[in-house]
Amino acid sequence: MPAFVPSGIITLTTDYGLHDPFVGIVKGRILAGFPSARVVDLTHAVTPFEADEAGFWLARAWNEFPIGTVHVAVVDPGVGTARQLLALVGGGHLFLAPDNGLLDRVLRAVPVDRCHRCEATRLATLGIRARSHTFHGRDLFGPIAAALACSRVAPEDLGPEVRLAAPQHVVGTPGEGTVVVVDHFGNLITDIEATCLGALNATGVRVGALDLPLHRTYGEAPPGTLLALVNSFGLLEIAVNGGSAAAALGAGRGTPVELVARDRRS
Amino acid sequence: MPAFVPSGIITLTTDYGLHDPFVGIVKGRILAGFPSARVVDLTHAVTPFEADEAGFWLARAWNEFPIGTVHVAVVDPGVGTARQLLALVGGGHLFLAPDNGLLDRVLRAVPVDRCHRCEATRLATLGIRARSHTFHGRDLFGPIAAALACSRVAPEDLGPEVRLAAPQHVVGTPGEGTVVVVDHFGNLITDIEATCLGALNATGVRVGALDLPLHRTYGEAPPGTLLALVNSFGLLEIAVNGGSAAAALGAGRGTPVELVARDRRS
Amino acid sequence: MPAFVPSGIITLTTDYGLHDPFVGIVKGRILAGFPSARVVDLTHAVTPFEADEAGFWLARAWNEFPIGTVHVAVVDPGVGTARQLLALVGGGHLFLAPDNGLLDRVLRAVPVDRCHRCEATRLATLGIRARSHTFHGRDLFGPIAAALACSRVAPEDLGPEVRLAAPQHVVGTPGEGTVVVVDHFGNLITDIEATCLGALNATGVRVGALDLPLHRTYGEAPPGTLLALVNSFGLLEIAVNGGSAAAALGAGRGTPVELVARDRRS
Repeated sequence: MPAFVPSGIITLTTDYGLHDPFVGIVKGRILAGFPSARVVDLTHAVTPFEADEAGFWLARAWNEFPIGTVHVAVVDPGVGTARQLLALVGGGHLFLAPDNGLLDRVLRAVPVDRCHRCEATRLATLGIRARSHTFHGRDLFGPIAAALACSRVAPEDLGPEVRLAAPQHVVGTPGEGTVVVVDHFGNLITDIEATCLGALNATGVRVGALDLPLHRTYGEAPPGTLLALVNSFGLLEIAVNGGSAAAALGAGRGTPVELVARDRRS
Repeated sequence: MPAFVPSGIITLTTDYGLHDPFVGIVKGRILAGFPSARVVDLTHAVTPFEADEAGFWLARAWNEFPIGTVHVAVVDPGVGTARQLLALVGGGHLFLAPDNGLLDRVLRAVPVDRCHRCEATRLATLGIRARSHTFHGRDLFGPIAAALACSRVAPEDLGPEVRLAAPQHVVGTPGEGTVVVVDHFGNLITDIEATCLGALNATGVRVGALDLPLHRTYGEAPPGTLLALVNSFGLLEIAVNGGSAAAALGAGRGTPVELVARDRRS
Repeated sequence: MPAFVPSGIITLTTDYGLHDPFVGIVKGRILAGFPSARVVDLTHAVTPFEADEAGFWLARAWNEFPIGTVHVAVVDPGVGTARQLLALVGGGHLFLAPDNGLLDRVLRAVPVDRCHRCEATRLATLGIRARSHTFHGRDLFGPIAAALACSRVAPEDLGPEVRLAAPQHVVGTPGEGTVVVVDHFGNLITDIEATCLGALNATGVRVGALDLPLHRTYGEAPPGTLLALVNSFGLLEIAVNGGSAAAALGAGRGTPVELVARDRRS
């Protein structure tokens, strides 16, 4: 069982938003447990209650951080119910999240070493307990992350090891997918992997009744026009050079997207 | 007079928003005065000019931070006029804010040791002065916080001690209150304290024509339905499991809320 | 050639927004290269693709940070095309930005020592390369900033020195200008410099058909009324005491503003 060696860095991914002081309060609890923690916000704008969206980004971002980072993800509609907290160790990183499917995509992206289920009795011996039924970011996630990141607690101190089956990846028709994220620029990020384009000899992308050309980057299309490209996360993306594809197409999460192959007649 | 022993941690609570670089500039001034300061954003989304809202959150968040934290709060519609800056010491923490009522709720939540009124002449001897009439976060609050947090200046160096009377808490009819904050999830946070529920033997909550059941946490109500609960700050809250109570009820700040007692006939 | 002596502080100014984890990922790359970097967000809400807006704020904010700060600005519609990255040294600070006009206003505000153009071959010898055509914040800007801020790399290691001509400042009719930024409060920040007011003996400001009085600060006007003032950045600003001038006037970026002089008959 490889030990987890913390770097002192903690990332936060939540659906708390930045309107209220919830994120700041979690950071307060982290600093109370580990005054020299370095905390980085990954995003707090996950769609409320959409645990899978948090996993989508965490699976693509974790490896940009130093080995030894503790990644805390709290999208937790079941807070205060019987759902458990998981501490997953893999690739030299640690992931702390509720056991509600949030880590499904992380399981497919990280070479998992082991996973521990946090037990209330173990946490209690560490002085960590739920003061409320509704804000476990403050009560549990923050203090646990601090204890792990400062080496006061090892993942195996939190509870028994559990075996997580990597969830079955639903494979659809090759070359067909949907928009999974609309980013700040209005770019439409799909679930079509870059590898699929080569395999299918794709020459373009169809969205609704429109066929869009494939380019290497935004600036290769004329300003204001639609294009498709492989984005920096290895996923097919629909964009407008200098504009918003979401606005131009009236498209969003769930919009179907289809690769157009070289030999296709349409 | 107990000395204030800083931890090197500074929190920021403002109505500056995150659209412009105002918060970043305040942090620049803090780092210019104290390069190893650790600065945490509590919130910058206080409703513009609503000093009381900043106090509401500060009174509920301060104690989650390590002893020795300097809490800076700038909601300051009177910037550049004769209003003074206050440095309040209590519970081992320090609060720096304009003298405009912002600290009223903090005064009721913190065991106050003493309060100093910042004097321009004293600040001048410390090299701190207003370069503008409109951005004292940059000119005064940031530099003063840095000087306090790095022990270069003690609160008593800022100006004379002043006596602040804890503001009279307006007590309304028990079991009646209003929504004071709508949070990021659309939860309606009221000013009805948890203690009130037991005292009145409350079994539910009335909003408009609706009677809502009291639950322990969100996930105990069926998905998509309205509920009431005691939230993590000890206040009555109206919520929807997996949704937005503000949207479901068309309610917001100021909406009246009433406890329904066991013996009530309606 | 004066050496650049880093302070370990890095500021970030982008149009990435805070909705997606893009900013967090850049910080991950910075910490991967320089674990004790102190990173400050200046703003991530620059209007998408408006490089000049990033320069506007950077030119007004840089000097509030300690000498030795690395200022990273990424508003980069040409990402992945032939545009180069620039590392500008001046006033003891370093500015890293794409060569797309973003630094034009910085050039006028900073005493420039020298500017280097980053070359891909030099970056490659430092282990820094573009892994994508669309996210150079992650691939290049973050790692370069980390290398500079921890003294592993000097600006001159990045590529050859280039001579940048300070862009010609377009001087319009004295006393006439436009709104260039609408801030979080709805204040209208114009491009009319404070010095212009004295030179013209200005007594008021005209916006549309309205003549507004000049005040020292917001609170000197009656609550809810329009006023003009010289703001904390030395620029003429239109505001409402306790409200939003943008909402009151229906005005925004580009709205014309004119000084009214003492001897003016209207």
